[in-house]
Amino acid sequence: MPEKKITLSHGSGGKATQRLIGEIFRKYFSNSILDRLEDSAFLPGERGKILFTTDSFVVSPIFFPGGDIGKISICGTVNDLTAMGAIPKYLSISFILEEGFDFFALEKICSSIKKTSREANVKIVTGDTKVVEKGSADKIFITTSGIGFRDPKNNISIYNVKPGDNIIINGSVGDHGLAILNARQDMKFTGRIISDCAPLNNMIHACFDKGCKIRAMRDVTRGGLATVLNEAAEASGSGIEVYENKIPVNRPVRSFCEILGLDPLYLANEGKMVIFAAEKDTEKCLKILKDHKYGKHSAVIGKVSKGRGVFLKTAIGGKRPLITLESDQLPRIC
Amino acid sequence: MPEKKITLSHGSGGKATQRLIGEIFRKYFSNSILDRLEDSAFLPGERGKILFTTDSFVVSPIFFPGGDIGKISICGTVNDLTAMGAIPKYLSISFILEEGFDFFALEKICSSIKKTSREANVKIVTGDTKVVEKGSADKIFITTSGIGFRDPKNNISIYNVKPGDNIIINGSVGDHGLAILNARQDMKFTGRIISDCAPLNNMIHACFDKGCKIRAMRDVTRGGLATVLNEAAEASGSGIEVYENKIPVNRPVRSFCEILGLDPLYLANEGKMVIFAAEKDTEKCLKILKDHKYGKHSAVIGKVSKGRGVFLKTAIGGKRPLITLESDQLPRIC
Repeated sequence: MPEKKITLSHGSGGKATQRLIGEIFRKYFSNSILDRLEDSAFLPGERGKILFTTDSFVVSPIFFPGGDIGKISICGTVNDLTAMGAIPKYLSISFILEEGFDFFALEKICSSIKKTSREANVKIVTGDTKVVEKGSADKIFITTSGIGFRDPKNNISIYNVKPGDNIIINGSVGDHGLAILNARQDMKFTGRIISDCAPLNNMIHACFDKGCKIRAMRDVTRGGLATVLNEAAEASGSGIEVYENKIPVNRPVRSFCEILGLDPLYLANEGKMVIFAAEKDTEKCLKILKDHKYGKHSAVIGKVSKGRGVFLKTAIGGKRPLITLESDQLPRIC
Repeated sequence: MPEKKITLSHGSGGKATQRLIGEIFRKYFSNSILDRLEDSAFLPGERGKILFTTDSFVVSPIFFPGGDIGKISICGTVNDLTAMGAIPKYLSISFILEEGFDFFALEKICSSIKKTSREANVKIVTGDTKVVEKGSADKIFITTSGIGFRDPKNNISIYNVKPGDNIIINGSVGDHGLAILNARQDMKFTGRIISDCAPLNNMIHACFDKGCKIRAMRDVTRGGLATVLNEAAEASGSGIEVYENKIPVNRPVRSFCEILGLDPLYLANEGKMVIFAAEKDTEKCLKILKDHKYGKHSAVIGKVSKGRGVFLKTAIGGKRPLITLESDQLPRIC
């Protein structure tokens, strides 16, 4: 590995993260389960239905429009399990607190965790707390792990994506990333930008309950929509084409991005799922999503093809490759 | 809660931690599984055999005699599952890295994780990496969660401790705590002090395999032996009597503690299990433990009584209460 020091890019979810995983973590931890690098690990045995996932949350600021580090720590883990077709059931939560951290803030975060886990119908069953000296951490870091169960017949996996599948997203992209940037820099842009942070399990399970054939899902977090599409294309050995004018982008996000020169396709979300659906079930799935509060602006944004790579059909009729970025546009987004 | 700010004591595993759990975490997260506050959570359903645990590791320094933050992050989680009678199987691992952290150090830690998880026969199946700006974390924090399975008949729990049970420990106390203190302060005491950090599952499962009736176990970490005994006495509503001259303490640990005025009964370990065994199986259990490399100095150190509280019978014949300390003697011990 040419690098000698960890940089912020290594935590971006982009190419530098992929190199870190490939050249260090897989070198030492490789096994057939880990190597799939899906949103949750599928545990063999136990009648083939336990899924397991983990995420650390270091978002800054810890309170932002639309959420806080507590809410995001539940949503992130719930959505990772949901993306694998599991019903999230049990969470662990581990706090690393900085000496001097405010009790009132901790209590607010805990109250938010309670509210979100109730909505997502998950139980926090175990936890841990460590405190480090002032200056050795930034306020509060939270790591949540989750266990979910799925029907063994429900074989959802990014490896199953097939040419002809439609690509659906349940609403606008970029909201979370910009909400954080705005909160951090206090830019006071007109048009309030609110994080889309939300637990998506109830919405997705409504699709399952009504028999929609979903081939694969991935929640859009660090690295944005572009990164998720590239991961799917690579894992399944297919090509992907998305239509720029079909991708929902909220008006304030669009203007903000234009001013700052940011691309919403690379900005993080915390309440968006990219769904690969069999063609025949696409309309049914879209209808169910649109009926849910987190899916009102759902849209079919593209199609899986026989080719390779991810391409964006631009609004003016051009076609350009949509690559995975070297590093994220913003650090500590989640 | 009278406090307004988080202090290092809140991460000590002592009374301040218990208050934080009782007054904040249980207030918001309370449910019948979490409220048991055992080393691992027992998940209902699934034929009653899945156990789940989590721990964050912030030990400083990250490399110390006998281990490093990688080794300890595997041992801690493996031992928490083992303490509940489970066979540890799958781990998640989540890194929070400080920008500028050395790749060589990360690779050394990963190699240590690999070695320890191989010894403990556990697979790392999922993970995450976040990077924060220089100064926002201290080098590296690791959170591991673990899943283990146990025979539903093997109903090990701290709540099951009964008067008449013998209390066994698998060797000397205080080694880890002092190894960290020595490494941190570079005291260069004669007589090298090495952390006892070790995965104890193979040793404990040898006891199960040979049919030893173990009622309960708890691994001795933050807060030391005294804290574990108090937790057991409280959960089971029993009294505990331990004999000072039966508790194994390594010679350099003893001298070091005398000089510094520290009590080894409150110092952390990372490779010690307190075992509550039915009287009739005590000798058999002790023999199996002594045959294992991590149990050579195992000893019966006390007995569960009908009373209340924990008492220490001193070497000179006195009897004094052994209470839970307000805060730990050392922060960032694990």
